[in-house]
Amino acid sequence: MVIAILGMGTVGSGVNELAARTPNLKVKKILEKRFTGPQITDNMEDIVSDEEITLVCETMGGLHPAYEFAVRVLEAKKHFVTANKLLVAEKGAELRALAEKNNVAFLYSAACGGGIPYLQALRLAHETDEVTALGGILNGTTNLILDAMQTDGQSYDEALAEAQRLGYAEKDPSSDVDGLDTMRKLILACAVGFDAEITSADIPTAGIRNTTVADIAYAKKTNRVLRLCAFAEKNGDALSAYVEPTLLPASAQEASIIKNLNYAWYEGYGAGHMGFSGQGAGKLPTASNIIRDVACVAAGQRSMTQPALAPHAIDNTAARHPYYVRIPKEAAFRTEWIDKTIATDGETLIETVPLSPAEMHTAMKAIPGAFFAGIRKG
Amino acid sequence: MVIAILGMGTVGSGVNELAARTPNLKVKKILEKRFTGPQITDNMEDIVSDEEITLVCETMGGLHPAYEFAVRVLEAKKHFVTANKLLVAEKGAELRALAEKNNVAFLYSAACGGGIPYLQALRLAHETDEVTALGGILNGTTNLILDAMQTDGQSYDEALAEAQRLGYAEKDPSSDVDGLDTMRKLILACAVGFDAEITSADIPTAGIRNTTVADIAYAKKTNRVLRLCAFAEKNGDALSAYVEPTLLPASAQEASIIKNLNYAWYEGYGAGHMGFSGQGAGKLPTASNIIRDVACVAAGQRSMTQPALAPHAIDNTAARHPYYVRIPKEAAFRTEWIDKTIATDGETLIETVPLSPAEMHTAMKAIPGAFFAGIRKG
Repeated sequence: MVIAILGMGTVGSGVNELAARTPNLKVKKILEKRFTGPQITDNMEDIVSDEEITLVCETMGGLHPAYEFAVRVLEAKKHFVTANKLLVAEKGAELRALAEKNNVAFLYSAACGGGIPYLQALRLAHETDEVTALGGILNGTTNLILDAMQTDGQSYDEALAEAQRLGYAEKDPSSDVDGLDTMRKLILACAVGFDAEITSADIPTAGIRNTTVADIAYAKKTNRVLRLCAFAEKNGDALSAYVEPTLLPASAQEASIIKNLNYAWYEGYGAGHMGFSGQGAGKLPTASNIIRDVACVAAGQRSMTQPALAPHAIDNTAARHPYYVRIPKEAAFRTEWIDKTIATDGETLIETVPLSPAEMHTAMKAIPGAFFAGIRKG
Repeated sequence: MVIAILGMGTVGSGVNELAARTPNLKVKKILEKRFTGPQITDNMEDIVSDEEITLVCETMGGLHPAYEFAVRVLEAKKHFVTANKLLVAEKGAELRALAEKNNVAFLYSAACGGGIPYLQALRLAHETDEVTALGGILNGTTNLILDAMQTDGQSYDEALAEAQRLGYAEKDPSSDVDGLDTMRKLILACAVGFDAEITSADIPTAGIRNTTVADIAYAKKTNRVLRLCAFAEKNGDALSAYVEPTLLPASAQEASIIKNLNYAWYEGYGAGHMGFSGQGAGKLPTASNIIRDVACVAAGQRSMTQPALAPHAIDNTAARHPYYVRIPKEAAFRTEWIDKTIATDGETLIETVPLSPAEMHTAMKAIPGAFFAGIRKG
């Protein structure tokens, strides 16, 4: 197969490296404006008009011009494989339809789970079993920060600075630490596992930005581990979906997911709970999942979902669970939500009665500096 | 697709149940001698000669008559999907050749990992990446016993009796507790991940039969967890492979694999360490992996390996690692192997210098009642 790569950053150069090790795979052209080289072009038309190129891997990230390029690739009747979660989360419906119309492939394994072969396993589970729930730790940067806080006793700022120094966190870490990256991956997983189209604005999404040593101390004291988790569940026609910090029992599999690792899972009617762990980002792991998708296209796969997904409103009323909350002493909190209050010097720590993510997330947005985390019992 | 099932035991009835939920899949005949019913026949010829049946699932277990039936199915040019690890471990080479010759499929995902979609993920890793090592906790019964000993403080006999009472362990538990079942699954994983043919007699295999509360106490004291693990690694042309109880750091992912769960992993040049956890046995999980294989056949897949594998001798010299050893006070132990001795009243506990599995397993067979476990540091 003769392919092109859009973008020669970390992941793109990984794809180029792994492709060179793969029989029957040739990278003919690479789109890159920042430098020149034998295969490199800065003109997208060179790639789109090259009839020998049958598949294009997009590793640029960002919505523009990745979206415009995706459209051009698919309209040129070339297969499109991407690692771009933002692109698939925001423009998936249109790209699926365009791929279907042009009878070419649109695959995006590397966009959820990085190197973990999760989405393809989930796809087959949806086709042959009934996927009832899915989720996991889908962002390595936040896991690195939380693990450093819990294992090494670092403060949030120290752990974030260290993640930035190591190249795991961006200078502006918002999309990681505010849970947006995790939320986009959840949109992809719901598409693949449920054939459900959900939109980012509907998903209660909380990140780890307000985590302090007080929260970690409470986790340790109660023999729990703090992780940023995505969760979605099908209840008949209703679909719950949310992203939030979660306090898990120290014996949970998620607790063993250390450093920048990811852990994605699904639950099938027949299969039960299936978990997948590994590198959720990084040059070669992410590239390896792109190369897997390329092989799947060669084997005949064209999509990871139905061509058109069913739009689903999010209904989190059935997903009620208790929360841990830390708020300033002076902040008001609805007494009927309190299960127990833990006395501290400066702030109020609370474990709540079971609440829906919708009501909890909304209430907490009104309290500056507050932190909250779902509590998973088992 | 119209299929038949050989054997209506636990897994066979699971396949029948899940097939009824799957569009475009019809179970036309079931081979079963113990009872009658609408689809049931006790005559294999009814299935082999039925031209409408294009695929046969074997869920009988055991080598005979499963092997003879497999040959008849493949010679009748029908696809063959099996959950039978003994059959694939012992007769894989012949059945692969027969399937290839008759241009039909021979798949066996459910034979390693039960419900976990491990072998298919491993197959694609081998095709698109370079698998460098693989292994895991591949037997749920022994994990249930070890977890009960470590978590609930049961003795080996109590934990085994409980596993038998719950239906997880056979009346004669030898193939589980002596590591044979794990070893057979390792043979399958080496076939799929390395295209390597290895034979059971060559694989150092130790089980958990001699585990006592003293071993668990030592694991706890050193903040470790005891699991029965398979391991294989490619070093150039050499292949190491062994099965043994293993002391793992309490923070290892394997330590979070509780009850009868399994955890299979591989390491890829590009992908890094990828782990897969879930139900390694049981009616519906195992059946779900069979149904996945059936869908893969429908999508065009014909095999999980090259048609003919390269025979590999096992060379464990590069797999040297320290061991924990417990032997009777009066037993002799080579002093140059001792790293440290832990004083106890009745028995001698030792941590050794790094040793190869071959020399360790051989030496320990000569000491009745001895127990040993590999020590994994990281």
